[in-house]
Amino acid sequence: MSGEFDLIRQFFTRPAASVDIAVGDDCAILTPTAGTSLAVSKDLLLEERHFFSDVDPESLGHKSLAVNLSDLAAMGATPRGCLLGIALPRYDADWLAAFSRGFNRLADKYQCPLIGGDTTRSEHDIVISVTVLGEVTQPFLLRSRAQPGDDIWVSGTLGAADWALSLLLRQKAGEILNEREIQTLQATRHALEWPEPRVALGLALRPLAHAVIDLSDGLVQDLKHILHASGVAAVLYESLMPVNLSLPDDDPQQLRQSVLGGGDVYELCFTAPQTARAALQAIAASLPVTLTRIGEVHVGQGLRVLDAAQQDISALPAGFDHFRPARRRKP
Amino acid sequence: MSGEFDLIRQFFTRPAASVDIAVGDDCAILTPTAGTSLAVSKDLLLEERHFFSDVDPESLGHKSLAVNLSDLAAMGATPRGCLLGIALPRYDADWLAAFSRGFNRLADKYQCPLIGGDTTRSEHDIVISVTVLGEVTQPFLLRSRAQPGDDIWVSGTLGAADWALSLLLRQKAGEILNEREIQTLQATRHALEWPEPRVALGLALRPLAHAVIDLSDGLVQDLKHILHASGVAAVLYESLMPVNLSLPDDDPQQLRQSVLGGGDVYELCFTAPQTARAALQAIAASLPVTLTRIGEVHVGQGLRVLDAAQQDISALPAGFDHFRPARRRKP
Repeated sequence: MSGEFDLIRQFFTRPAASVDIAVGDDCAILTPTAGTSLAVSKDLLLEERHFFSDVDPESLGHKSLAVNLSDLAAMGATPRGCLLGIALPRYDADWLAAFSRGFNRLADKYQCPLIGGDTTRSEHDIVISVTVLGEVTQPFLLRSRAQPGDDIWVSGTLGAADWALSLLLRQKAGEILNEREIQTLQATRHALEWPEPRVALGLALRPLAHAVIDLSDGLVQDLKHILHASGVAAVLYESLMPVNLSLPDDDPQQLRQSVLGGGDVYELCFTAPQTARAALQAIAASLPVTLTRIGEVHVGQGLRVLDAAQQDISALPAGFDHFRPARRRKP
Repeated sequence: MSGEFDLIRQFFTRPAASVDIAVGDDCAILTPTAGTSLAVSKDLLLEERHFFSDVDPESLGHKSLAVNLSDLAAMGATPRGCLLGIALPRYDADWLAAFSRGFNRLADKYQCPLIGGDTTRSEHDIVISVTVLGEVTQPFLLRSRAQPGDDIWVSGTLGAADWALSLLLRQKAGEILNEREIQTLQATRHALEWPEPRVALGLALRPLAHAVIDLSDGLVQDLKHILHASGVAAVLYESLMPVNLSLPDDDPQQLRQSVLGGGDVYELCFTAPQTARAALQAIAASLPVTLTRIGEVHVGQGLRVLDAAQQDISALPAGFDHFRPARRRKP
């Protein structure tokens, strides 16, 4: 399709030395390094579902690739290439230029060239579909290998993306934010719109971690995936959570929701044996990235979160389910 | 996301012995056969853009994978696995069951197991995004290797899918089709809704063909991609075209449009040296598939199509451009 290929070529084609054939044939061809396996992931992002219609297209281009690179990070994979499918209700060169700027900058940063995809016209909404390919070697970094006695760690800080989203939703609903809320939005919005995939951390965790996941759906929800896949139980300590320092502390319920349940975080949560603590601290210092020990794995099943008084938090946030009626719960 | 994973698991998870890790972790992991490269393609299909809202979901499941397998076929690739992203405005178990039946049957037929993907809720339209992975070995079957003196071949027949689409569009617009048109629609609709990817043909062409493409956008449009990529010219003969026998012959202009310009065909068009003719006839007989010689490659640039009187057809169909205002040209 001439229009389609012109679009791809105009905004997204650059030299891609690490692949054999990039955009322009029926398929892209990629030759994996001998002895490696290929990790593949794809995510759909839909307007008004995963991003607002008026989002900065440059940040959207960044985030579209970032959330997929985050999946590679959680497998300890080295990025090799990506494919982009994009559908727009109308052709908009400025929008595409900004989107591709954000997308391409991140692709360059992680040496993950665009090797294929398609553009098409949609009837209503912007649709973005990214597939990423990365290389991994055995043993794989899976969700299913957590072991009783493991520490539970999380990278970075928690709560900022969810807090920013809740403020933006209130703004979209016509509410006037007060001065302090506007400042909090300014301080937290970057976490929502420009998440940084933890690719280097994922690679560094390969010899140390037992089970790894990225927090796209929220800490409680995603950790449950690890526990379920590994057949183990866990306890988390709310007082140990690396709460983002921009969040106000005068609404403990919303804080708890954003920290334990807030999605769109793209930090890594992982389990590792206690013997790995010194090595993990060294990694944290060298990357650098904040790594925080927030709990431990036990025999059994289920997740408990203890509050500062060591009491069970009975109503844990549920995380984000795409088939719920509302776009997002409001904290 | 629990809802998301439940959906995927319910309808799409089956044993996938040929991959290391399938649906359920952050990425799927696939180990290519030693010495092979990976061919990757992805296509977005949007409601009311690529399929009607009331399409049989089983045929849609089939076609969503078929159009991607067709890209693998055009590279002479052996299918290895696929990923499915699907967004629905509401959860509909019957629709998903039928869709997955069509999708899974074709995945089984070509040993191309579903290894990952995601489901999400859309605001308006159904969105389907499929990524396929296949294995290829050097030398690759590319668009860029057509040579002067090559024959130009096409598989199967031409025109049926486009004719069915034009009749369906007239029906959707409220027009009452006459008895003969209804019969033609019944005879051609299968080509539009249940295209069969030419995977076996693509593999058989590997030692013989110079350049291969699939006809998703129509013969003229797609052949031009080969000519442009290879830096050559070509002549086609309208009288040699394998016109689908269900098409009425009393409207030569619409017939020409459907045969030369009609998209959604998923037959292979390829160039091969004249010395390959006997081998190609043997392949045609053994698969079996109809292979028709329709023209030849020359030095130079540009595409000429000669009519039965050996005169140049001056206004060639343009093929399908997704950014044109109308959904489809009406023949």
